[in-house]
Amino acid sequence: MFFHQRFVPGLAIASYLLGDEKTGEAVVVDPTRDVQPYIDIAREENLHIKYILETHIHADFVCGSLELQNSLSGHATICVSGHGGADWKQPFADRELSEGDRLEVGSLNLEVIHVPGHTPEHIAFVVKDASRNSDKPWFMFTGDFLFVGDVGRPDLLGEDEKQKLANQLYDSVFDKIAKLPDYVEIFPAHGAGSLCGKAIGSRNSSTLGYERRVSEAFKETTREKWIETLLEDMPLSPSYFQRMKKINRDGPALLGSKRHSVSRMPTKEFHRRVFENSLILDVRSKEAFAAAHIPESINIPLGSNLPTWAGWVLPYDRPIVLVLEKASDLGEVWNHLIRVGFDRIEGFLEDGIEGWEQAGYPLNKVETETVSELRNHLNDSRNGRTVVLDVRTEQEWDAGHIEGAVHIHGGEIKERFTEIPKDRPISVVCGSGYRASIASSFLLRNGFDHVSNVMGGMTAWKASDYETVS
Amino acid sequence: MFFHQRFVPGLAIASYLLGDEKTGEAVVVDPTRDVQPYIDIAREENLHIKYILETHIHADFVCGSLELQNSLSGHATICVSGHGGADWKQPFADRELSEGDRLEVGSLNLEVIHVPGHTPEHIAFVVKDASRNSDKPWFMFTGDFLFVGDVGRPDLLGEDEKQKLANQLYDSVFDKIAKLPDYVEIFPAHGAGSLCGKAIGSRNSSTLGYERRVSEAFKETTREKWIETLLEDMPLSPSYFQRMKKINRDGPALLGSKRHSVSRMPTKEFHRRVFENSLILDVRSKEAFAAAHIPESINIPLGSNLPTWAGWVLPYDRPIVLVLEKASDLGEVWNHLIRVGFDRIEGFLEDGIEGWEQAGYPLNKVETETVSELRNHLNDSRNGRTVVLDVRTEQEWDAGHIEGAVHIHGGEIKERFTEIPKDRPISVVCGSGYRASIASSFLLRNGFDHVSNVMGGMTAWKASDYETVS
Amino acid sequence: MFFHQRFVPGLAIASYLLGDEKTGEAVVVDPTRDVQPYIDIAREENLHIKYILETHIHADFVCGSLELQNSLSGHATICVSGHGGADWKQPFADRELSEGDRLEVGSLNLEVIHVPGHTPEHIAFVVKDASRNSDKPWFMFTGDFLFVGDVGRPDLLGEDEKQKLANQLYDSVFDKIAKLPDYVEIFPAHGAGSLCGKAIGSRNSSTLGYERRVSEAFKETTREKWIETLLEDMPLSPSYFQRMKKINRDGPALLGSKRHSVSRMPTKEFHRRVFENSLILDVRSKEAFAAAHIPESINIPLGSNLPTWAGWVLPYDRPIVLVLEKASDLGEVWNHLIRVGFDRIEGFLEDGIEGWEQAGYPLNKVETETVSELRNHLNDSRNGRTVVLDVRTEQEWDAGHIEGAVHIHGGEIKERFTEIPKDRPISVVCGSGYRASIASSFLLRNGFDHVSNVMGGMTAWKASDYETVS
Amino acid sequence: MFFHQRFVPGLAIASYLLGDEKTGEAVVVDPTRDVQPYIDIAREENLHIKYILETHIHADFVCGSLELQNSLSGHATICVSGHGGADWKQPFADRELSEGDRLEVGSLNLEVIHVPGHTPEHIAFVVKDASRNSDKPWFMFTGDFLFVGDVGRPDLLGEDEKQKLANQLYDSVFDKIAKLPDYVEIFPAHGAGSLCGKAIGSRNSSTLGYERRVSEAFKETTREKWIETLLEDMPLSPSYFQRMKKINRDGPALLGSKRHSVSRMPTKEFHRRVFENSLILDVRSKEAFAAAHIPESINIPLGSNLPTWAGWVLPYDRPIVLVLEKASDLGEVWNHLIRVGFDRIEGFLEDGIEGWEQAGYPLNKVETETVSELRNHLNDSRNGRTVVLDVRTEQEWDAGHIEGAVHIHGGEIKERFTEIPKDRPISVVCGSGYRASIASSFLLRNGFDHVSNVMGGMTAWKASDYETVS
Repeated sequence: MFFHQRFVPGLAIASYLLGDEKTGEAVVVDPTRDVQPYIDIAREENLHIKYILETHIHADFVCGSLELQNSLSGHATICVSGHGGADWKQPFADRELSEGDRLEVGSLNLEVIHVPGHTPEHIAFVVKDASRNSDKPWFMFTGDFLFVGDVGRPDLLGEDEKQKLANQLYDSVFDKIAKLPDYVEIFPAHGAGSLCGKAIGSRNSSTLGYERRVSEAFKETTREKWIETLLEDMPLSPSYFQRMKKINRDGPALLGSKRHSVSRMPTKEFHRRVFENSLILDVRSKEAFAAAHIPESINIPLGSNLPTWAGWVLPYDRPIVLVLEKASDLGEVWNHLIRVGFDRIEGFLEDGIEGWEQAGYPLNKVETETVSELRNHLNDSRNGRTVVLDVRTEQEWDAGHIEGAVHIHGGEIKERFTEIPKDRPISVVCGSGYRASIASSFLLRNGFDHVSNVMGGMTAWKASDYETVS
Repeated sequence: MFFHQRFVPGLAIASYLLGDEKTGEAVVVDPTRDVQPYIDIAREENLHIKYILETHIHADFVCGSLELQNSLSGHATICVSGHGGADWKQPFADRELSEGDRLEVGSLNLEVIHVPGHTPEHIAFVVKDASRNSDKPWFMFTGDFLFVGDVGRPDLLGEDEKQKLANQLYDSVFDKIAKLPDYVEIFPAHGAGSLCGKAIGSRNSSTLGYERRVSEAFKETTREKWIETLLEDMPLSPSYFQRMKKINRDGPALLGSKRHSVSRMPTKEFHRRVFENSLILDVRSKEAFAAAHIPESINIPLGSNLPTWAGWVLPYDRPIVLVLEKASDLGEVWNHLIRVGFDRIEGFLEDGIEGWEQAGYPLNKVETETVSELRNHLNDSRNGRTVVLDVRTEQEWDAGHIEGAVHIHGGEIKERFTEIPKDRPISVVCGSGYRASIASSFLLRNGFDHVSNVMGGMTAWKASDYETVS
Repeated sequence: MFFHQRFVPGLAIASYLLGDEKTGEAVVVDPTRDVQPYIDIAREENLHIKYILETHIHADFVCGSLELQNSLSGHATICVSGHGGADWKQPFADRELSEGDRLEVGSLNLEVIHVPGHTPEHIAFVVKDASRNSDKPWFMFTGDFLFVGDVGRPDLLGEDEKQKLANQLYDSVFDKIAKLPDYVEIFPAHGAGSLCGKAIGSRNSSTLGYERRVSEAFKETTREKWIETLLEDMPLSPSYFQRMKKINRDGPALLGSKRHSVSRMPTKEFHRRVFENSLILDVRSKEAFAAAHIPESINIPLGSNLPTWAGWVLPYDRPIVLVLEKASDLGEVWNHLIRVGFDRIEGFLEDGIEGWEQAGYPLNKVETETVSELRNHLNDSRNGRTVVLDVRTEQEWDAGHIEGAVHIHGGEIKERFTEIPKDRPISVVCGSGYRASIASSFLLRNGFDHVSNVMGGMTAWKASDYETVS
Repeated sequence: MFFHQRFVPGLAIASYLLGDEKTGEAVVVDPTRDVQPYIDIAREENLHIKYILETHIHADFVCGSLELQNSLSGHATICVSGHGGADWKQPFADRELSEGDRLEVGSLNLEVIHVPGHTPEHIAFVVKDASRNSDKPWFMFTGDFLFVGDVGRPDLLGEDEKQKLANQLYDSVFDKIAKLPDYVEIFPAHGAGSLCGKAIGSRNSSTLGYERRVSEAFKETTREKWIETLLEDMPLSPSYFQRMKKINRDGPALLGSKRHSVSRMPTKEFHRRVFENSLILDVRSKEAFAAAHIPESINIPLGSNLPTWAGWVLPYDRPIVLVLEKASDLGEVWNHLIRVGFDRIEGFLEDGIEGWEQAGYPLNKVETETVSELRNHLNDSRNGRTVVLDVRTEQEWDAGHIEGAVHIHGGEIKERFTEIPKDRPISVVCGSGYRASIASSFLLRNGFDHVSNVMGGMTAWKASDYETVS
């Protein structure tokens, strides 16, 4: 058996390539949209991808099934859940699977079980290996149903659905898989950091038995209490999740070789785009952005969290043009953006910010301050006007914040910036300065004049032993 | 938790890098001697290697603990089993571990259990994760004690020891780990293809519960019957295993930057070496070797099986000089050879076989024949003299061979070639021609004149529907 | 000024990328068909390719002008000679240049001079640099008119034309460029090894003055004597040159992304292709080919001489399927073949020769022998039948060959193999065994049974101090 | 003949590897201290480096002869000029060469001529090629004697020497090489951008004849007038040149594998170093540095000009610790620094500026402003206090600057910052902001409080059509 787990940091996606070396048949589970790695590995291992499986309609990334099938010239069958009913049908699939269906991949046998809760149609795959003369279940691809230390959150489809889904999830956890033995290994679709769970553990596999004993999700209690605990302290659900759902239900557009048509834009052409409704995404470091950037541009520094923040803050209806640290960053930025459905990447500033500067075009900046400077401002009785805006999560905020600070989760800044007074200096703070830079770029874009990013954020504040309140 | 399994094909070695991202502490289990990958990954993940663990004294590869410690400038503690007594002491270690000892690596807790059987001193590590508020065992590094679908063979220390070790192994399997729950994941030191087991499965992890139900090794029966079955059909133990044991007990020599001193030898210098007792190892393909090679050279075509065959057939007391397909193959050949203790690699033929040919120096060759040609020879009543030498394993031989063939396992050819008549044409056959090429090179080196390699071997023979006997 | 000479070994092609860094304008002279390097370098240097120039209609490689223009989305002007008349028109060009025309590339000025001889329409470009306030000529792109140590041969268009062209060449050399000063550097389109000259020197640039004093091509004598000397000892002109001329005149087909559609063929599909008129090209080493190859396949070992030999011996009207040493060789083989116009590369044997062997399909081989064995055969009075076939050039043959050998230039084996007796053993010899392997594969394909390749060839023969005759 | 010119941008160094393919002998001329490229190419081409030549004692980079010899295990002879007398002896050399000496490298013949002027001992090498049956000179390695469009400046050894050297240079140019014919190609040790000449042209080769006609350096006039013109408008000589001279005379220290011992420093250790006299070099972009940097650190953004600026502004007597954009930049920074003799690179900040920020350690910043903002300040009658500091060269300054600006060449800021008033806001301007960032970091380090870097510099100012004076 060939078994490969591919992990994409940031979105923390785990997808799988499983094959039988004897027959050369293989299956891919929950692929991302940048599909070349699956193709390369299959080729290297002399495997032919027979099935592409989706455990459910993903909310946090664009599913790669169609893209993978297309790159394989159609030689693979896309299978999705058949439990979705009219609302959650995926018309692009070749086959719908229901509870009890079995797929054969060489000597491997994948049996479908329906495990609603994270979504209504969610399925999982229990794998048996006939080559070991056994009809015992060996491991399970759990998708977003069951994570290490957590379950998939049931609140993503809105208030109306969440109680119903939480009830289904209770049944899936305690009833549906009750007969599966402790020794079954589980391979989920996400690891730590994903917003599809509340507190996903940092290993990417475990066993049913260990989770049953250790995971919060299996703690025995009444149904009501279990649901209450589950829904408590749920992190904010990114607004872009709604859009992902729709894209994944209808079938995402094919990318093909579109990446190679991203244009290198001379400074003047780029300048023209600004007036033509293109959105400028600047992926340089928070420091470089702070010192000099193109007015109106949004900063999301390149890194594994770029796609999540792009989903949180960027509009989907505008073409994007990029400001890169260096041209060779394009490939990585492209992968991050297409994974969350930003396909309209039209070009990047060929000569970088330096070309823009030398053309004498306008620039804007974010002030930077240290925690020590911030504290001095706040303590200065003559001041009294500085607003500290804390853009961390509810959980981080609760664990300790600066007295008097205003709290708006960074992902909500787009909708809630009107709550902040425009006529006072704003010091934006997060854990490090990363999210504060994103938020700062939004404030500047919306007419705020005095915005500064607190370098090192609350990590530095606490490292300096400055006081916090909870 | 950071968890990484590194798998080396061919010798099928699985080693592990496990770390706690919060504290940055990490541990490496059973490293191979080419240690750069551990260092690179630890660096990338911002981890500091605190412990280097050996589950036991390996027989099939040179342990990399000392090399790794040295490359880390000594900043890591080597821990080995303290259950070896006077015979199996490893004086190079910094610390001896005994049943019940615990190592802390950040929030991770590794508890030692003594599981003799494969070797007398063998230990395993049961891992718990305090960060999940649990004292439940999560997974276990089993070394060569327990594989997926198999146990570590107890017959490697010789006839005298094997009954005793088999008895200990029975206790380790059925008694010692009896209290460990089914849901514990197991991570062994070897995967399919390793000669440390009889029939290791092709996945590189499993769970205790699944193995207890499915593995031959857990099949319940009497102690006597279990031991009898275990020792049945055991594959031949490579003779080089004895040497590895000794090296790993005493502590292998440090390599440091020795690799960079492998010399590019001009044709004339290489020619001189042949007369100075250097052994010539030719790693070109079996076809290239067949058509033209330096007399007396041994052919082991480059590939993941090179180290095992080097261990089987090469003498350890001679410096080695190499004939490569191209100079850039050196790094890969080096890694393969040092993993099994061939450190005296002095150089390679700078201009390749072509330089040798153009110097007018002597050449030798192996004849090649197809299965169809072989069959015609055998059926030709005027012939009657061709000897078919089958160098596959006992198990392959038993599953079907050519009538009248002589069987000598390829690994024993060095000792048993005298059983083959020198005055008759020899057609050497294996599964593909790979092992047959190694054996053919040995026969030529030992004075056989008419040696041919059957291309495609028994795979081709069977694909042609030619008759076999069992 | 940005100046880059790109040299392709084997065909020994020198092409040029010249640009003015201030304006960003650039020009490419005589590009090959694998155009990515020009694009990459121009991008790296922030240059925009304005012109693509052809000095003449090349005979030895497919010109890359159209491919380059297409890869630049048409943003470049292709300029060719306008001196070709009706016969040598290149309709695909955007502009025809005549004596005295000037092209401006930033401050650089390229002036056209008509220098017929190698071909009737041949032009050269004399470059001046206005940024140095000078109207002095600095250097010249000479194409195949003038090489280091040689001139472009005038005999490629056939017997009828060669006297006429040689006369024109005399005028071009002694009259046309007479007024150009000694200090002008020359940058030719070919280096040592190219068959477009007789004896091209091994540096890739020189000066007019040095060549005028040292080159054979400038030796002063009568016109008649000069032409006589020039045409003496001319190496054989490859037959594929005719085809190149035609392709380059009419405009080569565009390749675009065709390379990515070369198929990985499973053994069975490959086997089927053999019966469907595909030509098998085996690019493994001569030794690997000798020991085992697919019947009817042609061997041209991978290396910089592959394209020349492909042009000599492969038919242009058949699709090609490949046998590679390893899959990753495909890119290099592709580049070699398309440079000489073999565009119909349909696929390669996915599992290599080993898959073929193991399927039990038929194999063929070339015998190998050493020079010592060959000499023994020839000296053996009982033998007397072995034919030595020497496939080297006329010049090599004349410098010393084995007594009694038959001489056929390797490039002519396709037409002249009928001169060799079929019923006698043939020992093929060249300088090393490379060309002998190509020729051997041809003989086998044409029904010869006893063919052997003499390893090391005449180099080994001479190194062994065996006798030769001249 | 194998001929390779290696060009290092920034310092604009051209060094050479020249070999005879037939005998395999080769020579390297004026190597830099990062010697691996010479070794790799020689290996690839099957050449053995026989001689390492120095044309003179370099002033702008550390010569790599000793390092190269050491990396070749001593198997190469270092040859230097023997015309230096007692003052300019290089005791590390194996051989001193004098006018008329000849070196043989296969069929190549290198003849020494003494061409003082740039330095007293300067020699050049005239190359003839016996394989072309010629005793004509073909080309010349001119070192810093003769560049394309320029000669080596004679003013680097101080006021006392410069008239004497200029006189010698006149003789070398007009007398010593007078007998060398026009057609000789010249290969100098520097291209455009090097400070060893005044106005070196942008191609890296030319011919004597072309230069005699076009170069300012050959303009015929009286000796006095020629010298006067030569010494006019000479760019400022970097102060580090003195140090290079001394190092290169005495023989630079060997680096060996020292690069691998550059330490990854945790934030706390790095913090400690600041108090232990280590100099912090921050090579991030000018924008990132502006927004947040470690107090007292010097910014020289990574790029080909880093070594020259390091030479200008960094002290040689302090160990250096680095702040990098990312860890993988280390190799490039290392090469830049060792080329100009900064060997004491002790480590880099492991977690980058982010780790420092999050530790709550102090930060400093440079203000940034646009040209439009600067102009508004200057025009604001209430202001009147802003000092514009222009750090460009004399030549750039003369071609147009902002009215009222103060001019100090960036390379002199270390000595002349006291000329600038400390109590007024300083706007630093250069061509782009690069040199202004270096100068700004110096001012901050020396107690200036209000320092801002004008983004885009005078290029932006002029692009905006703002007024300048000359």
